[in-house]
Amino acid sequence: MLIKRYTEIEPAHINHETATGITGRVVIGKKDGANNYCMRVFEIAPAGITTQHSHAWEHEIFVHSGKGEIFSDGQWHKIMSGTVVFVPENEVHQLRNTGKELLTVVNIIPSDAPEL
Amino acid sequence: MLIKRYTEIEPAHINHETATGITGRVVIGKKDGANNYCMRVFEIAPAGITTQHSHAWEHEIFVHSGKGEIFSDGQWHKIMSGTVVFVPENEVHQLRNTGKELLTVVNIIPSDAPEL
Repeated sequence: MLIKRYTEIEPAHINHETATGITGRVVIGKKDGANNYCMRVFEIAPAGITTQHSHAWEHEIFVHSGKGEIFSDGQWHKIMSGTVVFVPENEVHQLRNTGKELLTVVNIIPSDAPEL
Repeated sequence: MLIKRYTEIEPAHINHETATGITGRVVIGKKDGANNYCMRVFEIAPAGITTQHSHAWEHEIFVHSGKGEIFSDGQWHKIMSGTVVFVPENEVHQLRNTGKELLTVVNIIPSDAPEL
């Protein structure tokens, strides 16, 4: 059984073309024996934003802390600690932090997607 | 895209033989079009405890809030907000709340396991 604080894992800066203020961690992945799906934790700094993008795999998201918005169907929707989001495959999405604290999200993807 | 607070979903009381003080919610499941894995949120009340058990599917767990312990390999291990746990298939496990607040955990299972 793997038991650790997610903050024990070294974060990677996400350097997508239009993303700012994002770090990501693979907290449960193939190296841990998780062969069906992968858990990542992303921290988005205040005013940080991800790239607007889509891909062939889904996201299951749980917002752990902070306040922000997610872009879907041409609009921004509020998210906060305790919000869950299901992004189906091939759906355009984008997240941004609109608060003063870190926006921390747990994000699960299938194992055939890139882990980070 | 599904966007909701997990608390908007009606909780179910978990009535396993030896469990006390547990409610569960399927927050992203087959009804939402999630066909590969299922996200649940469990709330364990102070002094609440799950059944000690094992099963043929894995858990990926993120502790959202509270303090507690997880049983593994004959010992109890501390968990708290920000702890991640990977429980491989067929491994005995049990959770208990050792704090004064709700212990809230996000728990992902593969889609061929029972959702709740």
